[in-house]
Amino acid sequence: MSSTFGKIFKISTFGESHGKAVGVVLEGCPAGLEIDENYIQHELDRRKPGQSKITTQRKEEDKVHILSGVFENKTTGTPIAMVVYNEDQRSKDYSHIADKFRPSHADYTYHVKYGIRDYRGGGRSSARETVARVAAGAIAKLLLSKFGIRIYSYVSQVGSIRLDKHYDELDLNTIDDNIIRCPDAQTAEKMIALIDETRKNQDTIGGVITGVVKGCPPGLGEPVFDKLHAELGKAMLSINAVKGFEYGSGFDGVKLNGSQHNDLFENKDGRITTKTNHSGGIQGGISNGQDIYFRVAFKPVATIMSDQESVNEKGEKTIVSGKGRHDPCVLPRAVPIVDAMTALVLADFFLRNQLASLHRLSKHE
Amino acid sequence: MSSTFGKIFKISTFGESHGKAVGVVLEGCPAGLEIDENYIQHELDRRKPGQSKITTQRKEEDKVHILSGVFENKTTGTPIAMVVYNEDQRSKDYSHIADKFRPSHADYTYHVKYGIRDYRGGGRSSARETVARVAAGAIAKLLLSKFGIRIYSYVSQVGSIRLDKHYDELDLNTIDDNIIRCPDAQTAEKMIALIDETRKNQDTIGGVITGVVKGCPPGLGEPVFDKLHAELGKAMLSINAVKGFEYGSGFDGVKLNGSQHNDLFENKDGRITTKTNHSGGIQGGISNGQDIYFRVAFKPVATIMSDQESVNEKGEKTIVSGKGRHDPCVLPRAVPIVDAMTALVLADFFLRNQLASLHRLSKHE
Amino acid sequence: MSSTFGKIFKISTFGESHGKAVGVVLEGCPAGLEIDENYIQHELDRRKPGQSKITTQRKEEDKVHILSGVFENKTTGTPIAMVVYNEDQRSKDYSHIADKFRPSHADYTYHVKYGIRDYRGGGRSSARETVARVAAGAIAKLLLSKFGIRIYSYVSQVGSIRLDKHYDELDLNTIDDNIIRCPDAQTAEKMIALIDETRKNQDTIGGVITGVVKGCPPGLGEPVFDKLHAELGKAMLSINAVKGFEYGSGFDGVKLNGSQHNDLFENKDGRITTKTNHSGGIQGGISNGQDIYFRVAFKPVATIMSDQESVNEKGEKTIVSGKGRHDPCVLPRAVPIVDAMTALVLADFFLRNQLASLHRLSKHE
Amino acid sequence: MSSTFGKIFKISTFGESHGKAVGVVLEGCPAGLEIDENYIQHELDRRKPGQSKITTQRKEEDKVHILSGVFENKTTGTPIAMVVYNEDQRSKDYSHIADKFRPSHADYTYHVKYGIRDYRGGGRSSARETVARVAAGAIAKLLLSKFGIRIYSYVSQVGSIRLDKHYDELDLNTIDDNIIRCPDAQTAEKMIALIDETRKNQDTIGGVITGVVKGCPPGLGEPVFDKLHAELGKAMLSINAVKGFEYGSGFDGVKLNGSQHNDLFENKDGRITTKTNHSGGIQGGISNGQDIYFRVAFKPVATIMSDQESVNEKGEKTIVSGKGRHDPCVLPRAVPIVDAMTALVLADFFLRNQLASLHRLSKHE
Repeated sequence: MSSTFGKIFKISTFGESHGKAVGVVLEGCPAGLEIDENYIQHELDRRKPGQSKITTQRKEEDKVHILSGVFENKTTGTPIAMVVYNEDQRSKDYSHIADKFRPSHADYTYHVKYGIRDYRGGGRSSARETVARVAAGAIAKLLLSKFGIRIYSYVSQVGSIRLDKHYDELDLNTIDDNIIRCPDAQTAEKMIALIDETRKNQDTIGGVITGVVKGCPPGLGEPVFDKLHAELGKAMLSINAVKGFEYGSGFDGVKLNGSQHNDLFENKDGRITTKTNHSGGIQGGISNGQDIYFRVAFKPVATIMSDQESVNEKGEKTIVSGKGRHDPCVLPRAVPIVDAMTALVLADFFLRNQLASLHRLSKHE
Repeated sequence: MSSTFGKIFKISTFGESHGKAVGVVLEGCPAGLEIDENYIQHELDRRKPGQSKITTQRKEEDKVHILSGVFENKTTGTPIAMVVYNEDQRSKDYSHIADKFRPSHADYTYHVKYGIRDYRGGGRSSARETVARVAAGAIAKLLLSKFGIRIYSYVSQVGSIRLDKHYDELDLNTIDDNIIRCPDAQTAEKMIALIDETRKNQDTIGGVITGVVKGCPPGLGEPVFDKLHAELGKAMLSINAVKGFEYGSGFDGVKLNGSQHNDLFENKDGRITTKTNHSGGIQGGISNGQDIYFRVAFKPVATIMSDQESVNEKGEKTIVSGKGRHDPCVLPRAVPIVDAMTALVLADFFLRNQLASLHRLSKHE
Repeated sequence: MSSTFGKIFKISTFGESHGKAVGVVLEGCPAGLEIDENYIQHELDRRKPGQSKITTQRKEEDKVHILSGVFENKTTGTPIAMVVYNEDQRSKDYSHIADKFRPSHADYTYHVKYGIRDYRGGGRSSARETVARVAAGAIAKLLLSKFGIRIYSYVSQVGSIRLDKHYDELDLNTIDDNIIRCPDAQTAEKMIALIDETRKNQDTIGGVITGVVKGCPPGLGEPVFDKLHAELGKAMLSINAVKGFEYGSGFDGVKLNGSQHNDLFENKDGRITTKTNHSGGIQGGISNGQDIYFRVAFKPVATIMSDQESVNEKGEKTIVSGKGRHDPCVLPRAVPIVDAMTALVLADFFLRNQLASLHRLSKHE
Repeated sequence: MSSTFGKIFKISTFGESHGKAVGVVLEGCPAGLEIDENYIQHELDRRKPGQSKITTQRKEEDKVHILSGVFENKTTGTPIAMVVYNEDQRSKDYSHIADKFRPSHADYTYHVKYGIRDYRGGGRSSARETVARVAAGAIAKLLLSKFGIRIYSYVSQVGSIRLDKHYDELDLNTIDDNIIRCPDAQTAEKMIALIDETRKNQDTIGGVITGVVKGCPPGLGEPVFDKLHAELGKAMLSINAVKGFEYGSGFDGVKLNGSQHNDLFENKDGRITTKTNHSGGIQGGISNGQDIYFRVAFKPVATIMSDQESVNEKGEKTIVSGKGRHDPCVLPRAVPIVDAMTALVLADFFLRNQLASLHRLSKHE
């Protein structure tokens, strides 16, 4: 029950950070979609460790293997299983914390919940699990692109350095032009410098990723519980280290009056649109055809290189020392994860929306 | 698929704001729980319209009728259906907007998605649907209280008036002592004055509700997608008008270093606890036994009393005029809704957690 | 978890036989379907007690009330709640068995599972619950009829009296021409006489219902677990008193060789069809466009009018005496229930199948 | 949506018969269960091809690889992924039927549903998929055995040769003593001879498998739709080639009167039991503590060695010739599959039942 996401376009992930493999089974992908394995690998490469000086220096190839569901480069409608074998495991790095609870990690809560845990590198609670999400998300992006839906995520804040421009003042095609994945060269430089400095201090730092969806048709999302932004919120909050989610006007919007906040409809060349977009492209939980945008808050990485007080499984006082190779800031590697989760949510709602009205069904029967 | 929430302790809601009734079917409530119908009614009364000068002046009794699943005041383990019949419907109030799209409402998106909609009072997209959630949430609270879990929600911000105290500096038993439901008398007064002024200006205003859970045992929440905070986030974002969710250190936490943000474990009289609680009581998606706390952003109510430009179903320019009786600020009535959604999430995870380990199962077999 | 059926076209039923009401919430019905309330009532009337001399003489109007999801006689895409209030409850009829376990009823198993039960008339385990299924099934039939799918069920065996003709030798439009609902007048008479005699003996008798689906397009059903016949089987086995299910050649087919049993494909005027139909219209779990047919076995009604030995909740020996008004044979009233469950399965698979291939999606986007 | 089974103890299978691998992800297995990999392999060996002269002569090792969810030989509560790589693929065997529809196979229905299919050996519709079920079922059996629940399946009919003894007249520990898996040596010999003769005739033959569950506690199964026998029925009907399911008195029971069929309760040494067991251990959809037993009908294998008329994808007349190495009768290899599906159903209901009553929850909190 715990590792499944989506209702129609649905994934089940598996795998521990230092087990044999991490992987995913994707169900509900329509048959006949062309699968470009290089594209999946490209997305995984954006997430993989060791890609720049501001990420962990661990090296893993993260090569994807498609085990099923694709025949002659097309999906067949059956479950698509993808596996990435773990290579650079170095389990010994973790023996020193086998019975200790690392502060602000999931060690203690797993211990209490299950009475047993794979302590090596966080096991299942490791962000390595997101490899599986990125692989499945790549297929979701391929599906969505067939219908003109495009997804962009970028780093908009690191620590107190915040990119002040709104997403529509930026060239979103430049996101990957720098190693922090911020489409504003000047801000990017400052962010990189801050992370570098933080790393040298053996410390870590948090930040914010902004997500944008363009070309989303109106109608996606379900009323009541499965609102589009509610599912996006859950998707983002399910990513390791995420502490908050807001869309459209977000937390700042609470200060406005209704007369300032409402988005007035207008007819623009025969297309119904809104003059402003405080709604963030979603009204009543359903996309309205405007751009969707949201912000995701990431806390600083919990693994730091200095000594910290803690307790062990017996409840005795102990010291947790930082070892191993870790990220001073997850943000640059989290960008493709935000992309993937966004795509998974939209692909699911895109399919669910096909069934909303009799009119639509009758057309294609 | 669109109106169901929860996996084990699961609700399905139904009903339009101006149809015959709104209601809920609750499945998965264990047998043998004593049901106090007055308590359910009490929670509904906290949500009902007309309760004070700062809420809508519509009058509805919102009397709950339990149709099934309770026998001699105890749950039987079978589905519990509860219905509240709609009384004060005044559908005529809505005839003037039958074919118009009210700005920042769900009229347009429902129209596109379904090709048909019950335009009276928003129909299914009306916050009246939350009656059903509050009724089911009351039963969730009864269940949780058997295991010592207590839920508190209160208004912590209206417009720019923000309660600066942390939840643990407040007496949470005083939440209902004033009509805005803010457990700080002085701030409450200011908030009430602001809403009153806003109402006189025929406008509306947003705000923030803080949620707190005390007595939550460690172990609730599932790794990966169904993290406790991810499901809480979805639950909150599924409430009408919500634009953002953050828990623990939230958006502010991104500015901290890991060395500042980490919550160090300590052994306090034989109980493992943390020195600080930036984690908000949740680590790796699973409760750690500390207090859970979070913030929920509500936009200003979209229905305002002044004229607004818009378009109709034909795409023609039109004017939407404010009529009817509406809330200048949803916050005071949203408090029991936040309570209810929190309780529904926790009850579901409480049950799911019973199955996590063989050790636990063996004990009670 | 226990009272929900379907994945997309999904129902949740509620209600005890002697509680306030039985009802259903139907989710996932596409918007824009015309709802003829008389048709729903007509289906309920076919199921209701007191309709002929061979059914129970209890009288209940079983009048359906639609509480939501239908606006100006069309579905809106939102949940459709329907309620039938219980009228002729006579709970006193059941006080004598309040703490006794009636043989071959669910009294004992509910007692063990839940520790509490509504003993009046079987409570939730009563076949009265099927009122809710028939109401929802009527809407499923309305949906299917838009796409040319027709459902027929009839009594093909009572006790040892078996209708020897295959379904395609019968006029399925005459099913309702007699009170046993067997489309062969001569056999019907014999069946009625047997039931009448059984009733006079204060006993009960079982039988078989044959289900037929005509006009089903190829492609319905999912590979692997959710095979069309597997879901039909579950649907039928979920009906009170059902003991067996077979489709196509069924249990008799096991005696055949592959060379006899295989259905050879042929091209008949440009349409691919099969020369024989041992497959029962389903191959690999997916409809192939041929008629679907199956048989459902019902055991004799457990409530008989004579005294039976049993035990009570304390495990003491006791006598259960038959009282009240009961069916000597459920078959005639079970026909609309088989209809309904068949329709619910097909409606769900019809919708699920819309999403199977990219080609289909692209057409109607 | 199509390849998932179970609600709590839940599996998702993947893989085509001639793709890289078949596998399964098992979610919801409680933490702390000891996993004996040899036992899983043992169950797979009972299913594997080439094990005797009456099965296909294909050779596959079917070696299981556990990729996740098991740490130091114990389950951790996280998803358990198991993979069996395909070895003896010989895809060329299938090139001659790439565009032809084999009679009574899923070729045509997959073609219509998806517009594309992996034609090699049936692809996803191949019974090779059941490798995944047997692997997961082995873990279910390990879990159930901790609570004293034992599962037995055996061949009770091949063609017209039927074992007349009831299951309780047989020694169920002798099932594996012969290659047909019938615990009656004399009948087994006849069955084997019939299959051998059928094979020589280049034909195939069907049969029946009987399933028995001993030691099942009362309370398993859910009222209404998810009745224990309904889910067992679905599970069995989801196995390739199954055409029917009956439990307890089954189809024969319809001929009895209620007074003959009812199972009278009695107190046997302080334990409530029934004098007869026409109910097959299930009343009202819930186990009553008696033995559960049922029968499953398998049609003759569709692949035969002689030529058959058919059509190709263009609708042209063609001949399908039998090639490759196939089973003359699936029954002996289907026994472990019936075992596995039974175990999966019971494990799921065992866990679901833990949550039924407050009394039970309170005990172990």
